[in-house]
Amino acid sequence: MTLEPGNGAAPGRMIGVADLDDIAIGGAILGTGGGGDPYIGKLMAQQAIRKFGPVRMIELDELDDDALVVPCAMMGAPTVMIEKIPQGGEIMTAFQKLERFLGKKIGAILCAEAGGLNSTIPFVIGAMTGIPVIDGDGMGRAFPELQMVTFTLHGVSATPMVMVDDKGNSILLECIDNRWTERLARTATIEMGGSVLITLYPMTGAIAKQAAVRGTLTLARRLGEILRESRAAHADAVAAIQSKLDAATIFHGRVTDIARRTETGFARGEAKFTGVEEYRGHDYRIAFQNEFLIAERDGQPIVTTPDLITLLDSDTGAPITTETLRYGLRVVAIAIPCAPQWRTPEGLALVGPHYFGYKVDYRPFKASEVPPREQHA
Amino acid sequence: MTLEPGNGAAPGRMIGVADLDDIAIGGAILGTGGGGDPYIGKLMAQQAIRKFGPVRMIELDELDDDALVVPCAMMGAPTVMIEKIPQGGEIMTAFQKLERFLGKKIGAILCAEAGGLNSTIPFVIGAMTGIPVIDGDGMGRAFPELQMVTFTLHGVSATPMVMVDDKGNSILLECIDNRWTERLARTATIEMGGSVLITLYPMTGAIAKQAAVRGTLTLARRLGEILRESRAAHADAVAAIQSKLDAATIFHGRVTDIARRTETGFARGEAKFTGVEEYRGHDYRIAFQNEFLIAERDGQPIVTTPDLITLLDSDTGAPITTETLRYGLRVVAIAIPCAPQWRTPEGLALVGPHYFGYKVDYRPFKASEVPPREQHA
Repeated sequence: MTLEPGNGAAPGRMIGVADLDDIAIGGAILGTGGGGDPYIGKLMAQQAIRKFGPVRMIELDELDDDALVVPCAMMGAPTVMIEKIPQGGEIMTAFQKLERFLGKKIGAILCAEAGGLNSTIPFVIGAMTGIPVIDGDGMGRAFPELQMVTFTLHGVSATPMVMVDDKGNSILLECIDNRWTERLARTATIEMGGSVLITLYPMTGAIAKQAAVRGTLTLARRLGEILRESRAAHADAVAAIQSKLDAATIFHGRVTDIARRTETGFARGEAKFTGVEEYRGHDYRIAFQNEFLIAERDGQPIVTTPDLITLLDSDTGAPITTETLRYGLRVVAIAIPCAPQWRTPEGLALVGPHYFGYKVDYRPFKASEVPPREQHA
Repeated sequence: MTLEPGNGAAPGRMIGVADLDDIAIGGAILGTGGGGDPYIGKLMAQQAIRKFGPVRMIELDELDDDALVVPCAMMGAPTVMIEKIPQGGEIMTAFQKLERFLGKKIGAILCAEAGGLNSTIPFVIGAMTGIPVIDGDGMGRAFPELQMVTFTLHGVSATPMVMVDDKGNSILLECIDNRWTERLARTATIEMGGSVLITLYPMTGAIAKQAAVRGTLTLARRLGEILRESRAAHADAVAAIQSKLDAATIFHGRVTDIARRTETGFARGEAKFTGVEEYRGHDYRIAFQNEFLIAERDGQPIVTTPDLITLLDSDTGAPITTETLRYGLRVVAIAIPCAPQWRTPEGLALVGPHYFGYKVDYRPFKASEVPPREQHA
C-alpha cells in the first residue's frame, strides 16, 4: 500500500525526494564519520519515494502505546557498504520476516542510528509500505555495535532480530542479551558478505516514547538545509552548523596520515592531522571504529565518545565519513554534546571510552564553556 | 506428553534403556570416527527414557505422507562436544522453535546421521515428547558438513533450520541452498561455543520415504548387540561385525603418529599406523575431518569416502572415534560399502574424495571381492 500524498487528515509531515537530500547530509553530520555513506542512502530512499510516493514522518507522541515499533538499519563495515548498494527487497524481507514471527502488524518504523545511510533506510521501507517513520532514533548519533542504543538502557531486547543478505539468505536471532546479539550478528554479517539489512529491537509505542532519542530526523533535515543554504549564499556553513548544534570547533587541520583496516567486521583506524590557522603548531589525532571516538591534541584526549566528533570539509562544510577521509584533506573538526541518556553511568558503561579500550575517563564536553583548545593551551 | 510403555496397539517397537547401550555403540561403528561420543549420547537418551518412558521407533512406511518429519542432531567439533554435555532442554527448544515457525505439529523425528551421539539424540527428544523416531537417517554413516545428507540429493532444503546453544541463544536460518546453510551455521556454531543442537531439513513423510537411508537405527542396535554378545562369549567381535556388515578388514595396526587440530569448527587431522600380524611391513595412514575419510597403504589410497572406514579396538572390538584415537593403540581398520545413493555422480559430487580436496578418484569398495590389501600386494 502507499500513502496518499497530501492527505491532510493524517498527522505527521510528508517527507519527499528533496527532504532526503537534507536528511542524508544532516544524518552524516550526526553520524560522526559512521552510519554509512550519505550518497547511497539518499539514492535508495529517493528511488523508493519516486516509485511509491512520500513518507509520513510522525512524532513519538503520535504513536499508540500498543503499536509495534520496529527499528531498522544496515549493519556492516562501511567499506563494504559502499561497494554493495542494497536493494529495497532486502529491507522489505527483513520487515516481513519479523512481522510474521511476531504475528503482529508493524505500526511504525524507527531509525536505529543517525548516519548518512541509516537515517535514510527507514524511508525506503516507509515508502514501500506506507508505514510512518518516527522522528527519532536509538543513539542521537552513530555507534559501531548494535547493543549501543538507548533501547538497551531501557531494557529492550535486540531480539527477535532479522538479518537479510543480498543473496537471499536470512537469519532470525533470539539471544539472551544484547551483547550476545551483537556477537552472533557480527560474525554472521561477515560470513554473509560484510553488510546486511536488519530489523531489531521490536518494542511497543509506550516503550519507544521513553527510550528513543527524539527529533533526530528533523534535526538531520535542518542541518542538511543549513549546509545547503550556506553554500548557496557563500556563507560560513561550519559556523551555521555550530550555532544550530551547540557545537564547538576542536581544530582546523590537514590530514597527514591515515591508517585504516577492516577487521572483525569494523572499519578501524586512526587519522593524524596537523593544525592550520590558529591551530598551527599542534598535532591532532582521531581514533575510529566505524565512528570517530577519541580526539587528541598533542597526545592529550580532548573529546571522547559518547560526545560527537564530526569532521567537515573546510571548503564545503560537507561531512566526512571515516571512509572518505584521505591524505591532504583540509577539515574542521567539531564536537557536539551527546544525548543526555549517554552521560549516565549506565550509558557510559555501554559507549564510554573504557568500553572501546581507551584508558581515558569521560569528561562531558560543553560547547558553551571555553572550547577545549583553550583549556589545554 | 509421554507414551504409555507397552501399549500394544501402537505400531513400531518400543526402545528402552538397554537398547540405547547397543544403539550408541553400533551408531559409533557406523559413525566412521565421527558423529560424536557414544558414551555421552547414551547417557542423555537413557536419562530421558528413565524419566519419560520408552520411545516408539517406526518404519518409514508407517509414516503418513503428509506428516511433518524433522531431523535433529548435535553440530560442532566432537572435541568440544565431549566437554559440553547438552541438556535435553536445548534440543526441546530447537524442536519447539521449528514447530512454531512452521505452524505445524511434528509427526516424527528423524536421525540426521549415524554416530555414537547423533544416533541417540532423536531418542532424547522422542522420550520427552512422545513423538516416534524413524528407523533411518540421512547418511547411513556420519559426514562432517550438513549439506552431506541424502535429503540434499532429493532437493530437500536444510532450512528453515534452528540452532540452540547451551546459554539460551537461538538462531533460525533460511538459506538459498544447503551449502550456504552449512557455511552460516558453521560460523554461528563456532561463535556459540563450538557445539549446538539443531533441527533442520523439515520434510513430509512422502519425501522422507524416498530420501532417507532405511533401517539405520535397527542396524546400529544389531551391531551393538553383536559386539556385546561376542564380548560375553569371548568370541571374535570383529569377525562377527564384519559378517553382519558385508565389511572387509583393511589392516591390523598400531598408531605411530597422530596429528589433530580443531579448525574452522572441525576436528581435522591424520593418523599413521604400522601394520601388525599379516599386515606387518606396511604403513597405513588415515585422514579425517570429524570422520575418517581416506585410508592409504604405503602411500596408495585403498578406501575413500563415501565408503565407510571404521576403526575398532583390537582387544574389545569397540569403535574408536577420531577423538579417542591415541598413540600406541592397536586397532583393526575395516571398510564397509556406503549407502547406494552416495555412489551416484550427484552423491560423489557431494561427499566424494574430490569435494574434501583429495586428488583421488573414488573406486567403489566391495567387501565380497578380494580385500584391497590383496589387490595392492
